[in-house]
Amino acid sequence: MTTDDRVRVSVLGLGEMGAALAGALVRSGYATTVWNRSAGKADDIVAQGAEEAGTAGEAVRSSRVVIACLLDHESVHEVFDPLSGELAGRALINVTTTSPAQSRELAAWAERAGVAYLDGGIMAVPPMIGRPESSILYSGSADVFHEYKPLLDVWGSSTYFGEDAGLASLYDLALLAGMYVMFAGFMHGAAMVAPAGVTAGEFATRAAPWLTAMTGALEGLAAVVDGGDYTVDGQQSLEFSSLDDILAASSEQGVSTEAVAMVQRLIHRQIDAGHGEEGFARIIESIRQPG
Amino acid sequence: MTTDDRVRVSVLGLGEMGAALAGALVRSGYATTVWNRSAGKADDIVAQGAEEAGTAGEAVRSSRVVIACLLDHESVHEVFDPLSGELAGRALINVTTTSPAQSRELAAWAERAGVAYLDGGIMAVPPMIGRPESSILYSGSADVFHEYKPLLDVWGSSTYFGEDAGLASLYDLALLAGMYVMFAGFMHGAAMVAPAGVTAGEFATRAAPWLTAMTGALEGLAAVVDGGDYTVDGQQSLEFSSLDDILAASSEQGVSTEAVAMVQRLIHRQIDAGHGEEGFARIIESIRQPG
Ligand SMILES: NC(=O)c1ccc[n+]([C@@H]2O[C@H](COP(=O)([O-])OP(=O)(O)OC[C@H]3O[C@@H](n4cnc5c(N)ncnc54)[C@H](OP(=O)(O)O)[C@@H]3O)[C@@H](O)[C@H]2O)c1
Ligand SMILES: NC(=O)c1ccc[n+]([C@@H]2O[C@H](COP(=O)([O-])OP(=O)(O)OC[C@H]3O[C@@H](n4cnc5c(N)ncnc54)[C@H](OP(=O)(O)O)[C@@H]3O)[C@@H](O)[C@H]2O)c1
Repeated sequence: MTTDDRVRVSVLGLGEMGAALAGALVRSGYATTVWNRSAGKADDIVAQGAEEAGTAGEAVRSSRVVIACLLDHESVHEVFDPLSGELAGRALINVTTTSPAQSRELAAWAERAGVAYLDGGIMAVPPMIGRPESSILYSGSADVFHEYKPLLDVWGSSTYFGEDAGLASLYDLALLAGMYVMFAGFMHGAAMVAPAGVTAGEFATRAAPWLTAMTGALEGLAAVVDGGDYTVDGQQSLEFSSLDDILAASSEQGVSTEAVAMVQRLIHRQIDAGHGEEGFARIIESIRQPG
Repeated sequence: MTTDDRVRVSVLGLGEMGAALAGALVRSGYATTVWNRSAGKADDIVAQGAEEAGTAGEAVRSSRVVIACLLDHESVHEVFDPLSGELAGRALINVTTTSPAQSRELAAWAERAGVAYLDGGIMAVPPMIGRPESSILYSGSADVFHEYKPLLDVWGSSTYFGEDAGLASLYDLALLAGMYVMFAGFMHGAAMVAPAGVTAGEFATRAAPWLTAMTGALEGLAAVVDGGDYTVDGQQSLEFSSLDDILAASSEQGVSTEAVAMVQRLIHRQIDAGHGEEGFARIIESIRQPG
């Protein structure tokens, strides 16, 4: 059998995401054992060739590598606390969404139980799993990441951030923060042009390539932050970055100014502290030091 | 002479941007007359082949198409109010930054004076002029835009938005709003990961492709906005978009939550109004209707 060449893997949790992860493994030829708390969710995957375990313990015992895709941190403890003896010596890859602190807590729990722990943050929705645009971030045990990388790569691109198990989750949340804030900025722009008869769709055809081009500036802004000297030449100064025109036009268009006013406040805290002639990158200092 | 095949053009204002625009025209073989209020700024461009006019009136009279790149709305009036007679019958292309209302006021002034008026918003810095990444937005006279498009294309990509002279400026400010808000979101993410030892530069190498990929979602969000029905299937709901995890992790990392809290407020105003099960795109309604 071809699947004998490959490692056996167990997937616990067959919600929308767990089912997508398990399905991708089965289709890639991995011998896959699945388990879900409520009955019936395994049927599709079993029809594709997976084996269903009757209990979570049975699922853990059948593979050296165990994937957890449950609801949250609490449900991970609920399922695995009674099984720490069985898990000892195996690898646990937990892709359940958890906070950085929760991921670190689980890593400490796993270490006490003799379990090699890798934490994952999924930057994808279930239909994207297995496609190139799917990205999963990992941190925790480097050994687990490297040993099982071919398996992880079945789901999309796999990136390892370091031994601190909280890093993947922290990165995940930091990238999501960037995304949500960018979406709000886009919506602000769309709301500004709407009273002039411009549809959101027309605005999107301009805004998407524009924002993409502007991501090209992030590396330069970051270099200034990392250099620690905001006075370097060739940057746009904070004073020059006054958003008064944008705020005034937003008000004229009758829309809320709050998205842009947020940036203006970050800028003005630095200007007020005497840094107006320094570069725009300095707004990170307003974020680093909450008022 | 090859330049005889081409239209003669006058550029008024040789600050950093005006000099870049005039230089690009001269290098493309346009017969170019230049003028600047203070002496000395024309020397470089004259050395490249431009002619210098002694007065603004002389510059206006020497070409059928006049480019204005001055400081602001006020300086445009200061230079051209005394010259409205000379401008009559010519085309005025004003790329000075002005608000939508100021652009409309200048278009009305030009119409009374018998001047064909095109307003431009420059989405570039001077070194980008003439390169493919430079983009200039136009609105106002369609005739002027189409007649002089080859000339405008010397500076970068030229896009025409419509007869309303305020549209280019409005688009310009709306796109800049999107950019500044995106930059703040990036800086928030960078500030979140910094205490874990991640440099802003490392974060940028992940955030730039991630945000670029996420601009792919803008078209879909816009389609929902334009459809006017936020209950359509397949969208992430507002309730699912709760940013509590991101806010909690931001606080744990000791950074200001204000960038993300701004988005959370937009979401919560819609949830509070009973729309929690509708799509995330609905946050535009929070922006359209200031509290
Ligand atoms: N869906 C996405 O777009 C997406 C994207 C990125 C990350 N994620 C993360 O992936 C994880 C799973 O998401 P999902 O979309 O698959 O969620 P889901 O469809 O709601 O499934 C939740 C899964 O967790 C199980 N579960 C919940 N509480 C449990 C408990 N106390 N004991 C045992 N099992 C329990 C459920 O079992 P029952 O069937 O018995 O209820 C189900 O298998 C979440 O942490 C989510 O944040 C999801
Ligand atoms: N630089 C950029 O990155 C950039 C990007 C996009 C848009 N823009 C816009 O382009 C325009 C010009 O910007 P810039 O960077 O070239 O500015 P700048 O270097 O400060 O030059 C300003 C120009 O305006 C002239 N001027 C100011 N007040 C005047 C008055 N009352 N009468 C006659 N001339 C007057 C100045 O003449 P003097 O030499 O006599 O002072 C100078 O030629 C601005 O509206 C700016 O917002 C610039």
